[in-house]
Amino acid sequence: MEHRTRRLRAALAETDLPGLLVGAPVNRRYLSGFTASYGWLLITRTNAFVLTDSRYLIQAGREAPGFAARQIINPGKTLPELVLELCQEFGLDRLAFEAGHTTVADHGRLAAGLGDAVALEPTEGLVEELRMVKDEAEIAVMRRAIAITDGVMEAVVPQLRPEHTERQAVWLFEQALRKAGAEGPSFPIIVAAGSNAALPHHRPGDDLLGEGQTIIIDMGAHIDGYNADLTRTVVLGQPDERFWAIYNTVLEAEQRAIAEVRPGVRAHEVDAIARDLITAAGHGNHFGHGTGHGIGMNLHEAPFLRWTTPGGTSIPLETGMISSVEPGIYIEGWGGVRIEDLVLVTDDGCVILSQAVKLSG
Amino acid sequence: MEHRTRRLRAALAETDLPGLLVGAPVNRRYLSGFTASYGWLLITRTNAFVLTDSRYLIQAGREAPGFAARQIINPGKTLPELVLELCQEFGLDRLAFEAGHTTVADHGRLAAGLGDAVALEPTEGLVEELRMVKDEAEIAVMRRAIAITDGVMEAVVPQLRPEHTERQAVWLFEQALRKAGAEGPSFPIIVAAGSNAALPHHRPGDDLLGEGQTIIIDMGAHIDGYNADLTRTVVLGQPDERFWAIYNTVLEAEQRAIAEVRPGVRAHEVDAIARDLITAAGHGNHFGHGTGHGIGMNLHEAPFLRWTTPGGTSIPLETGMISSVEPGIYIEGWGGVRIEDLVLVTDDGCVILSQAVKLSG
Repeated sequence: MEHRTRRLRAALAETDLPGLLVGAPVNRRYLSGFTASYGWLLITRTNAFVLTDSRYLIQAGREAPGFAARQIINPGKTLPELVLELCQEFGLDRLAFEAGHTTVADHGRLAAGLGDAVALEPTEGLVEELRMVKDEAEIAVMRRAIAITDGVMEAVVPQLRPEHTERQAVWLFEQALRKAGAEGPSFPIIVAAGSNAALPHHRPGDDLLGEGQTIIIDMGAHIDGYNADLTRTVVLGQPDERFWAIYNTVLEAEQRAIAEVRPGVRAHEVDAIARDLITAAGHGNHFGHGTGHGIGMNLHEAPFLRWTTPGGTSIPLETGMISSVEPGIYIEGWGGVRIEDLVLVTDDGCVILSQAVKLSG
Repeated sequence: MEHRTRRLRAALAETDLPGLLVGAPVNRRYLSGFTASYGWLLITRTNAFVLTDSRYLIQAGREAPGFAARQIINPGKTLPELVLELCQEFGLDRLAFEAGHTTVADHGRLAAGLGDAVALEPTEGLVEELRMVKDEAEIAVMRRAIAITDGVMEAVVPQLRPEHTERQAVWLFEQALRKAGAEGPSFPIIVAAGSNAALPHHRPGDDLLGEGQTIIIDMGAHIDGYNADLTRTVVLGQPDERFWAIYNTVLEAEQRAIAEVRPGVRAHEVDAIARDLITAAGHGNHFGHGTGHGIGMNLHEAPFLRWTTPGGTSIPLETGMISSVEPGIYIEGWGGVRIEDLVLVTDDGCVILSQAVKLSG
């Protein structure tokens, strides 16, 4: 885990920042291993502290041995007081903070507490940028999470029956995830049947899966802080021609987009491949979300494979990034189709990590 | 649901604010019923809008019929652009935002987008204050969540065996919650056995429940956006005398604190009842967390029954508040005891909502 702190320090040096206060729980866990629900990291060029309260003192010592435990917050000492004390001890008169993860209210209290002694400087995406490229340990965990997810998809889909409700189907998937070793689902599992599948993020309810209609299943295993994400669209019984036309369009869009994934290609270019194909098929207005997203400790993280705003740009893909590729077509009143796999960018293209079978016409 | 918007408007009028941008998902759901993972509310003295993107358009119309759907964000139009447009349409040159739920980065983008046309004014706790006192519909949902939780605790504890791991026990509770009608657990279920119980928020692992040692079980049902929270401490086999001494101290602290709950008593005074008793028993340093917390759409919400910082104050309890009362004693190397029930403040005291049996010496 020390190499992550080293990379962060290099990033700090590059932007001439003497230290960073890490507020985002996921960034904290990534850098230190400390998983509690409350805590901050203060990382300077030479020191690294976990700041937390008494509930998590013992846990911090166990989980984050590379961080100084003596500096952990005591009841009654507020975060600003502790941060000020540490900055003064180590001669910092400037401190960066995570503007994307610090509320205006917390920032106001910190700024008031630090007063003129320490200037707070907003940063965005410093740790997220490190997290985009997965290290070996991360890829290994992701592979485990994805393998569990694939196995569950393949095991549970054949158990689905038209008379199941969406909610019952969700529970089948969730139980299977747990039995297969997941700590839980990466996100609330989506099972969307018939016209409900027109909502990309439908909340499963009491509607039946039914026969002959489109069913979108979107789920993933959460394990050791990492997430998998897999979508399959299935039909119980016989799909009709309209289904196949739409399904095959989405499938082709997905396959072509995956074929485009390699180092140097920009994120929005992968999106454009899928989007242009879907638009050419007459469904340009039926694909409202991006083609994919990076995934790791957050379900959705950089890079984001989507269109750019006018004048905007997007980052080039790099070896070691893991992203979803998941185009879809959603038609109100009819339903929807989405197909999603996870890919790992390699030096000469990408490896498709997801292995679950999919429908083929 | 309209009475909630009315109460918010009264609060806005009281503080002379023309409108509020609601960013916190829970506050959004409370006011509008809109549950999607992305969205904002803009509520003025006369109008109410849901702002979201294309993924959730249909859902917003279904879930938040009292809010204008025509104002929903389109792909490509950023939040600041849409907010500016609405403010100009309705003549607002000031707009409050939730400083406790808006990041410094989002605020910066909003402020830049609104420019000189609309001044952003930070507020904290406006909606949270409304949410502290539960309405009839909320109390009914909380009672359902608590009844499910009680039933699961009573059904699963007798199934626990010394050779179960903590993780297996968690899974028994989780399955039972789902089968009893919960959407899921309110939070990651805690089962902490033996010395692990010294960590108030232990993450369950592969340690065995074992015989004769303390086991803390902390769990609750999540249903329709609301949370229950229940802790019982049990022992498989025969507890020893040290256990009983500690257990009875915690139990007495809990019962006495509950007896103190009534309108007008301040939150920290309830904490002091439990804390003084535990301190008198020689465990003042073994009770690091507050005695209780409000609960509802958030697992932890105001009022917080804990000590105040020097010179600080705490709010008086009111009829309709629901809070946990959950003192504990935690001893490194030995384990811990926590007992938690939920109470509803009534005009002349409180009603104990949790009904699950507890150990009695």
